[in-house]
Formats: sequence, structure tokens, C-alpha cells
Amino acid sequence: MPDTMRVSVLHDIEDIALEQRPVPRPGPHDVLIRVSAVGTCGSDTHYYEHGRIGGFVVEKPLVLGHEAAGVVVACGSDVTRLEPGRRVSMEPGVPCFVCEQCRAGRYNLCPRMRFFATPPVDGAFSEYVVLHEQFAHPVPDSLSDEASGLVEPLSVGVWASRKARVGPGSRVLVNGAGPIGLVATQCARAFGATEVVVTDVNAQRLRLAAELGATSTVNVADTALRDAGHEPDVLIECSGVRAATADAIRTIARAGRVVLVGMGGDEMTLPVAHVQTFEIELTGTFRYANTWPTAIDLAASGAVDLDRLVTHHFGLDEVEQALTVAQRDATAVKSVVHPQR
Amino acid sequence: MPDTMRVSVLHDIEDIALEQRPVPRPGPHDVLIRVSAVGTCGSDTHYYEHGRIGGFVVEKPLVLGHEAAGVVVACGSDVTRLEPGRRVSMEPGVPCFVCEQCRAGRYNLCPRMRFFATPPVDGAFSEYVVLHEQFAHPVPDSLSDEASGLVEPLSVGVWASRKARVGPGSRVLVNGAGPIGLVATQCARAFGATEVVVTDVNAQRLRLAAELGATSTVNVADTALRDAGHEPDVLIECSGVRAATADAIRTIARAGRVVLVGMGGDEMTLPVAHVQTFEIELTGTFRYANTWPTAIDLAASGAVDLDRLVTHHFGLDEVEQALTVAQRDATAVKSVVHPQR
Amino acid sequence: MPDTMRVSVLHDIEDIALEQRPVPRPGPHDVLIRVSAVGTCGSDTHYYEHGRIGGFVVEKPLVLGHEAAGVVVACGSDVTRLEPGRRVSMEPGVPCFVCEQCRAGRYNLCPRMRFFATPPVDGAFSEYVVLHEQFAHPVPDSLSDEASGLVEPLSVGVWASRKARVGPGSRVLVNGAGPIGLVATQCARAFGATEVVVTDVNAQRLRLAAELGATSTVNVADTALRDAGHEPDVLIECSGVRAATADAIRTIARAGRVVLVGMGGDEMTLPVAHVQTFEIELTGTFRYANTWPTAIDLAASGAVDLDRLVTHHFGLDEVEQALTVAQRDATAVKSVVHPQR
Amino acid sequence: MPDTMRVSVLHDIEDIALEQRPVPRPGPHDVLIRVSAVGTCGSDTHYYEHGRIGGFVVEKPLVLGHEAAGVVVACGSDVTRLEPGRRVSMEPGVPCFVCEQCRAGRYNLCPRMRFFATPPVDGAFSEYVVLHEQFAHPVPDSLSDEASGLVEPLSVGVWASRKARVGPGSRVLVNGAGPIGLVATQCARAFGATEVVVTDVNAQRLRLAAELGATSTVNVADTALRDAGHEPDVLIECSGVRAATADAIRTIARAGRVVLVGMGGDEMTLPVAHVQTFEIELTGTFRYANTWPTAIDLAASGAVDLDRLVTHHFGLDEVEQALTVAQRDATAVKSVVHPQR
Repeated sequence: MPDTMRVSVLHDIEDIALEQRPVPRPGPHDVLIRVSAVGTCGSDTHYYEHGRIGGFVVEKPLVLGHEAAGVVVACGSDVTRLEPGRRVSMEPGVPCFVCEQCRAGRYNLCPRMRFFATPPVDGAFSEYVVLHEQFAHPVPDSLSDEASGLVEPLSVGVWASRKARVGPGSRVLVNGAGPIGLVATQCARAFGATEVVVTDVNAQRLRLAAELGATSTVNVADTALRDAGHEPDVLIECSGVRAATADAIRTIARAGRVVLVGMGGDEMTLPVAHVQTFEIELTGTFRYANTWPTAIDLAASGAVDLDRLVTHHFGLDEVEQALTVAQRDATAVKSVVHPQR
Repeated sequence: MPDTMRVSVLHDIEDIALEQRPVPRPGPHDVLIRVSAVGTCGSDTHYYEHGRIGGFVVEKPLVLGHEAAGVVVACGSDVTRLEPGRRVSMEPGVPCFVCEQCRAGRYNLCPRMRFFATPPVDGAFSEYVVLHEQFAHPVPDSLSDEASGLVEPLSVGVWASRKARVGPGSRVLVNGAGPIGLVATQCARAFGATEVVVTDVNAQRLRLAAELGATSTVNVADTALRDAGHEPDVLIECSGVRAATADAIRTIARAGRVVLVGMGGDEMTLPVAHVQTFEIELTGTFRYANTWPTAIDLAASGAVDLDRLVTHHFGLDEVEQALTVAQRDATAVKSVVHPQR
Repeated sequence: MPDTMRVSVLHDIEDIALEQRPVPRPGPHDVLIRVSAVGTCGSDTHYYEHGRIGGFVVEKPLVLGHEAAGVVVACGSDVTRLEPGRRVSMEPGVPCFVCEQCRAGRYNLCPRMRFFATPPVDGAFSEYVVLHEQFAHPVPDSLSDEASGLVEPLSVGVWASRKARVGPGSRVLVNGAGPIGLVATQCARAFGATEVVVTDVNAQRLRLAAELGATSTVNVADTALRDAGHEPDVLIECSGVRAATADAIRTIARAGRVVLVGMGGDEMTLPVAHVQTFEIELTGTFRYANTWPTAIDLAASGAVDLDRLVTHHFGLDEVEQALTVAQRDATAVKSVVHPQR
Repeated sequence: MPDTMRVSVLHDIEDIALEQRPVPRPGPHDVLIRVSAVGTCGSDTHYYEHGRIGGFVVEKPLVLGHEAAGVVVACGSDVTRLEPGRRVSMEPGVPCFVCEQCRAGRYNLCPRMRFFATPPVDGAFSEYVVLHEQFAHPVPDSLSDEASGLVEPLSVGVWASRKARVGPGSRVLVNGAGPIGLVATQCARAFGATEVVVTDVNAQRLRLAAELGATSTVNVADTALRDAGHEPDVLIECSGVRAATADAIRTIARAGRVVLVGMGGDEMTLPVAHVQTFEIELTGTFRYANTWPTAIDLAASGAVDLDRLVTHHFGLDEVEQALTVAQRDATAVKSVVHPQR
């Protein structure tokens, strides 16, 4: 094991540099992981470009990256579930475990959550990271490193389908065909949904949605959603676009569910009378809880194809390119950083 | 049984007249009810003043009144559960029974619902009405005629507490201390809620809320709700006031529930980021389903005091006064029309 | 339309005869259906062999058959959803629609349910039947007549998976690989279950289970279930065998669900301490409610293969052979009667 | 703070002795509590008389007692929620916090739970104990020491009412009027149940049940339950008596819930056909999770009267008498040990 490692550090807006840092040492319940692949997320790009997301402000150097996979290389003294050599997918947020929210099984709502790449907690654009053993989830050999990292966004989709109670018979509308919309689409199918309609303004992304299981698509640049003839009982909103969100809610059937995944700002104007008279249940997702084993199963069984989302690969010295490739290449869906390269 | 009866008919905006009409005859599954008491509701007053509520327009003469009680005086040929002489509380909306919503137990969402005093269906400001036997619910002798009629608004409160999953340990915020807020407050207590905080801008109504079980009150004319120090896990919104709704939602705790009972117009601007990051569940109530037996139990046991809400009484020839008394008398909470007077 | 039709009538134990009866006339909300295919069920055979099932006794001539499909040939005066020529799958139990259970959405528990082939209600081994329009569910052309009939047993599987809350991540144990076990297995997969283990004592049926999606099988004639190394979180019990039921419950994980579909007699000795200390939820299924559209979707999409279950075909004059073929042919899974032959 | 303390230790069957032991020191997240009151439970008596309960065997000296209250006298280094002087009710089982069950909010099912007075974990018949700060729940001054200890059995009742989904309109049958039946009865009322019928064979206990809120009682020594005319929708079984359990289940209405609290041995013969045809949901309770705040609220508000259950008081040198008083005094309901006496 080396003493030091390379780490990609965000110092300021649009200022990322590679540094040498000591390899961290695992606490009693932690494992040390050699990072193999880290997907880039819109939140990483947002921190890079703006230095903040809402109330989370980058005030000192921060390591980005939270869609991560790797191999266990050392175990803390009390670790019992893992041993060196085990490939794992990393659940990037470790809660306090003991507060009211944690004890109720809602650890994603823990006020003391420490989440990768969220100030002041460092993320995974790094050769090594330490993680609580319960949040380093073993993956089968059949799952690629990239897919193991992308279990993180897949978990967002699993959580959304659970909250929306998607199952056989469900008619689901997915708003937005970005990476989250594409995993939400695949999840909804894996949960048994009968129909999954996907909207976007990008024809290429809608074609990808169709390849990945959407039963129909609506390009809302051309067609008003209300004219498309769908009356879904579930909306999984992944666009964060206000007008599109309101339009979509208006199409939802009686007793339907709306799950807001995309963030569209502090406030939104919603068609409340429709929510009331149709007794629609509306909620949002904040990360996820207890999703990893299921997400790994879905990816490993082939029910969800994560590798299909990966369009670009970068080394650890190319994090800036990884975070900005979508500005240069309209075909980009998901970039992956390989810290060992 | 007389052949004709007196009926109070709304002909146009602010134009109500007493008429003679034939006493209706019950169909095979209906009972004929001699009406003893009918509460007045804000929706009755709204039809009287504006001739419409949203898409429901009074296009031909309409009988108002839907908070009704009476005595069965005749039974259709196939009626098996009731006999003449039985005092009943009327559930004023009869669904089609067979559609997808009805078969799923959500008969309040039936698109073919026929609801008293909603165009074109006549209500209960009338000496007699007919009603499906399953919607004429027997009441014990201990329940007054007025309370038997007010089981209807109580049902709104029961439905809201059910949707909000109120129980022991719940900290409930009730927005608005009008008649619905006051039954919602009492219901929340009857469901076991530990705290019930009530807001209004009317000090007198807040005093009544406190008498009826609110554990604390906030006069939001004086005190910003966010400064009142409450972090409820349930909001039962009964004001329909947009700013107050948004302010109240911002105080709701993680994994809380918001039930919108008051109507505030087609759209509302809501603090969506709070709903998302706290994973709050938001829904509305549209009437109620399967609430009558429980509501009657709550009123009969004394857990909820409906008689306390009744401030004014009128005869059938005084419906206009009943609908407008609140404009003249600030102490008015609930007016009751007695069709036999 | 002919005036009379052929009907297969059970007169006494092991005494079935073909008769001419008048073609029935649909009531206002009914459709007249020309029956194309009717699956045989163990309950049909039980009535044929024993003249009763529990408290249901065949006291006068009875028409058996309740897994039925056909084509609408005439409509009652008030029918709005169907027209002649429409192919339909029949939901064979029509409830009263208005009682407490019906209004709560649990119409399968309606005490006044009229269910095909359950004394004194006639079934579908007949050229024509009448049925309430809401219970004649349209099927797409891609669905065969046989499969359209077998939507009935499929509904049993859908109901079981719903009650057990099967979804991605679920590890399901299906006890018994008869027709119901085989649809339950396919349903569990269609609901997203990660593992579906099937048990039986018949190797051939276990092979069929594996072909239809079981991830593993256990022949409990050879291997004690507790030694098979599974710890499922769901048991769908389709064998009705007492010892097998108790053995299976003992393998269920903490917070698991047990759904008893197979009938094993009035009483059973169950491992109650395991249910208590693991807080397992145990319930049963009694028919189904609101399953047809979902079951049709599952069959039409290919997620469930019903045609694969059909091993034998018979004409209306061969009902006795259809009901007893399993005694002569060990490969029999599901026999279908074609009333037009 | 003294260095040593008195502890009541079970050495063998019917062999309890007072000993001096060092006062324990709290770990970083623990508090040290001076114990004020400890209720005695049937399980304590069972260990005293038999040296085991099922697979839990007393193999080395064990301190009994798990219904405990006290005052915080010292805090571990990382304790943030409590300070010395705070009166607390003790939740006597501390889970591992990190396993699958804990992360799902079902910490009562944690396989690594350390529970007071369950071999090899010592209980609270001791002058001092240490406890994780999150499991030492503050109580208001209005709650007596005895009641603060009896929040533990009250939690059993809260958990049972939650599992049974008791609320307004519920008709509840409580089997058995021992201490758990009596708290279950009071809880069911506090959750809003319309009817609570209590059964026992002891007329005196039934009188106490009636005083504490039972709406009716049935002495099943005299009257067969099936003849008592009740059709409850919830059974909270607190007797552990097999025949009584089966008889009670047979009276439960369609879609009812059965919660088995009393332990009646490894297996029980249950009326399974009734469970199936009525689609009754049956489960058990194993301790409780997240009940303390609610239970404290119920006791503090007076909705549940715990002091009324206390019939006998003992000093720490009288634990044997406390555990056996019921054998000598038929009026005994709940004995409390006061370790500071």
C-alpha cells in the first residue's frame, strides 16, 4: 500500500488540480477502497461551475465525485462483512445511525448525514477512499466497474419507483430523459409498469429512452403533453423544469402519485386544484435509503442496463474535461472518471 | 304523506324562493326522508352569491344544502337495512358504484358522482328528499338533529386525519379555524394527536379552537408562523389562503404529511424544495369515502362536539338569511336550516 | 342469435349431462357473451367428485366452469363500455356493489357475491352466458382464447403478489407448482422479484416452473426445505399441504410476508413463535379484486405465458374428461373446454 | 458518586442475592442512570422460576428487570441530548444500529440486539445502570417514577395498536386482562377505537379493564366468546392461551387484523380457513420500535393511566418477593422495585 495518493481537488470555481495526499486510514468499522470508476453527476458540474448548490457552499478545497465503485484493500479492526479483494459499489452518504430519522429507517433524512462531495465532505475523485463497511456493497463479477459506480444514480430511480408505488398495471410518465430520467424509465419497467411514457425536448435522448424500454415518447418541444393522449397514474419528474412539471401533473389520473426528483428551485407554481380534486399524492425524493441491494440486483440481472449510459471515459487528471464534456458533445450522457488511470 | 312539499330553490344569483313541488318517490334502493336539519356550508353561500363554483355552473333552478339529517318515512321495494321511523344522517353524494374508482373503494373520485346541491343535482333545503339506502346512515337518539346534519363536515375532518395518518404522537397544525378547521381540530385530537396547533387571524375563532381541544393557537395576524416554534409533522390546511399555506408547509418536519382541504384556486406557489428535501407527502381531500360510521361514532361518543358549532337557526323560508348571516354577525360559526319549521 | 343453447350440467356426483336451455337475456347492465374457452379448475373437479366444497353444496343442477373467455354478442340497454364483437375475459364474480365491503374496494369479500360455478350460481360450461359489463374485460387480439380464460387463475397470482408486496429485491418462495403455483411464479417475476424459489414433489412440474422463470427449485420429496439454504422474505403458499406450509413459514426472514392461497382445511398448526419473533405478516387470498386489467396486461405483454400451461383441449360434450384428465395423464397441467365445439 | 453499588443478582433457579458491584462507567454515547423504579414482568418471574425462556438460558449470574426509570447522573464524552439531573424512562434494548434491520427502521428485529435482563445482558434491578443516550428518554415531572418505568409495557401496547392500525371506528377485542392486556386496552382507546371488548377468566381483572376504558367485557369462563355477539375488526391477543386465541380469531370481521402479543408456545393451531376467506392479516409483536415518545405522551397526557396498575412496592433486597407476589396475592397486577430503598 502506498503512503500517498493522487486526488482531484476543487479549489475554486472552475479550478481543479491534482494533488498528493496521504492515503486515509480506515476507522474500526470502515474499509479502505481503491477507487476504480466514478460517474460524474450534474451536481458535480454545478459545484465546479458555481461553487455552491443552494445552501451548500464550497468554502475550502473539496473533492467531488459520488457515483463510485472500487475494490476493498484494507479493513478496520471491527469489520466483519468484507475482506480485501472484494469489489464494491459505494453508497456515498453515511448517516449518524442513531437519531430519530435513522431509527425510523429514514436515514436519508438524517440531519447529520455525511455525503460524498457535499461540503465539507470529500468525494471519490481520488485513488483511495474510506467508507463505513455497511455502505460498501459487494457486487458480482458480472457487473462492470462503471455500472458498479452507476448503481448510485440507479438508486435514485429505485427510490422514485418505490415512492410512486410502481408495479404491474402502472402507467408511468417520466419527465426528462437525462441520466436520471433514463434510469427512472428502466426502473419503472423493472418494477413491472405497463406503460412508461418519456418526455424531453431532445430527440436523441428520447430515442435512447425508447431503446431502454420507454413504451412511448413525447417530444414536448413539438407536442403539448396534454394533446399526447396519456393519462398516467404516476409522474416521475426528472426535468426540474417548472412549466413541464405543472403540465405533467395536470395529466395525472385520479389517485395518482407524483414524485419530484429533479430540483426546480425553492418554489414552484403547481396545479393544486387538480391535486386536490383528484386526490393525487405528491412528494419528492431526497437521495435514497435501503436501495443498494435491489439496485445491484436490477443491474446484475440485466433488468437495467447501466453500461449503455456511459458515453465518455477520463483519467483522474481529466476531471475538468469529464465535468464539462456535455457542453462540447451533445451525445454525452454519462462520463466516467477512472482514478487509477 | 302529503303529495307536495315546500322546497327552497335558487333561481339566480341572490334569488332564492320557496316553492311547492311533488314529494319525490323513492326508487327500489332508496328511502324517502323527512328532513329535520340542514347545515349551511360556504359552498352553498358561494353558489348563492356567484352562481357557480369553478366549472360547476347553476344553469337551471337548484336546491342547495348538503349537511342534512332526517327521519325515514318510506322505503323503496328493495330496501333491507332501514325502516320508517329511523333517524338518519345523509351522506350527500351517491356514486355510480361500478366504475374503476368505485370498485377500488375510492367512490369519492367517481366521475359520475351525483352530489347534493351541485348542479344539476338538487340538495336538501326541502321538506323531503330521496336517498340511496346505503347513504342514509342511522344515528343514535343521543345525537341531535343538528349534529346529525353536521356529520357531513365532520366527515371532511375524518377524511383529512385519515389521509394525514394522524395518531398518538402526531403533532398537527390546522390552518384556519372556520367550521372545517374546527372539526379537523377535534378529529385530530380524537385520532390521538399529541399536539394540535391551530392558526387563524380571528382571535374569537382561536378561542373556540382552544375550547374544542387545540393544544395551542397562533394568531397569524400578529405572529409569523415560523416564529411560533412549532415543527409539526402534519398540516391540515383548511384556510385556502395561499401565503398561509406556503408558510405552513415550510414548518413541516421531515417525512411529514400535508393535506390540502381548503380550496385556494387552480394554482398555488408552493415551497417545493422543502417538500423534496424533507420528503413531505402532500395531497388533497375531495369529499370523503367510508367516513360516516366513524364520524357518527365520534360525535355520539362525545369525542367531537358538533352542537357547539351551531350558532344560528332558521326556517325553510329563511334560507337566504341563513346563507348570509356571517356577513352580519361576526360570531356566526354554523347556521342550521330546519325544513319542517 | 339462436333461442336455445347447449349447456353442460352437473346433476349429481360424477353425473354431468349436456342439455338444451334457453339462451339467457342480458339485463340492462349486462352483456351476452358467446363463450370461446373455459379452463378447468381444481374446484370444478372437486364439485364433480364430491358435490360440495366446504359449506357450498350442490343441491340443484349446477353449471361448472369459471375461467372463461368469449365474444360479446348482445348488450343490455344501459351498457356503454362494450359492443358486439368485442372479445372479453370474464371476471366470474359479481358483487352487490353497495355493501360496506364493496364500498371499501374489497368487493371480493362481499357477502352477497354471485360467483360462477358456486352453488347456486351457474358457471360457463355453456355456449352463452350473461355478465355485468364491468366484469367483461376487453382483451387484445394478440391474446388467445385460452389465455383470455386463464386470466382468471392469473388474477389469483396477481392478487397474491400484491398482498405479499412483491417487488424488485424480493426473494419469493412459491410452495407448489400446480397451475396456481405456476402463475404465482410468473407473477412474482413480473412484479420484479429477484429470486423465486419453487417447491413441489413432482420433478416434471418443477422443470416447468424453471422454464417459466423460477430462479431455483426444491423437490421437497428429496430435500428438506430448511436444508435448501433459502431465507425468502415472501411465501406464496399454493400447495395447501399442512406440513409443507409450516416448514415453509419457518424459513421466512424477519418482517417477511406469508400469503396462503392454497386451502388446507379449516385449521392448521402453524409456527406461531416464528411469526411473532420475526414479526411476519400472514394473510390469505380470497379470490381477487381489481386485478383484471393488470393480469391482461401481463399476459398480453408476454411477461406471463398462459398458453404454455394449456395441455389438453375438449369440446362441451367432454367436460367429464376435462375434469378428470389429471387422473389419467400425469403431464396434465391445464385443460380447456371449448363450448363452441 | 460512590464506587460500588448494590445489585440484585439471579444465580440459579429461585436463587437471588444482593451483591456489591462497581458502579459502571458510561461509554462515549452512554449515560449513567441512578435507577428509581423498575416494574416486574412475567418474563423476570419466568427466568427466576425456570432459568430460561425458550432458547435464552441463564448460564451465568444475571440481573433481571427491564421496566425501568431513573435519573441521569453522568454523561459519556459524546452525549449531547441529556445532562445530569434529567429524569428518564429507559428503553431497555439497544440494537447494533447498522444492520439491514436497523437501517430499515426495524431495530427491534436486530439480530444483535442487547436487551436488559435477557442472557447474557444484565437488567435494571440495580442502583445504577448505563444506557445509550438515545434510549434514555426524558420524561416530564408530572410522570411518576413508577409510570416512567411502566412506559416499557405501555410501549408493547402502542406497538400492538400501530401494527393493528387501530383508529376511530375500530372495534377491538383484547384477549386477556393482565398488565399487557390492560395497557393494550388503554392504548386502543387512546388510538380512538370505538369499541374495546376485553376477555379474561378473572372477574376482578375484567372490572379493572372496564374502569380503564373497556367498553365491554366477556368472562370467557362463563360465556363462549362466539355467543357474546361481537364482530371486532381487530384482535390484540395478550393471553397466550391457545384455545382462546383460536376462538377469538374466529370472531374477527372481514379484512380484520390479528396481532399476537402473548406467547403461546412454538406452534398453535389456528382457524386458517377463516383467515383466508376473510383475508385477515395476522402478525405478532416482538418488543417495539420508536414507541417511547408516543408512550410517554400518552402517559403524561392522562390518556393512559399507568399508576393505576401498580399494586405492590418493594426494595432492592425484596426482588424475590416482588417476583412471586402474584402467587400469594390475587389482587396483584404490577409490582415495582425501588432500587434506592
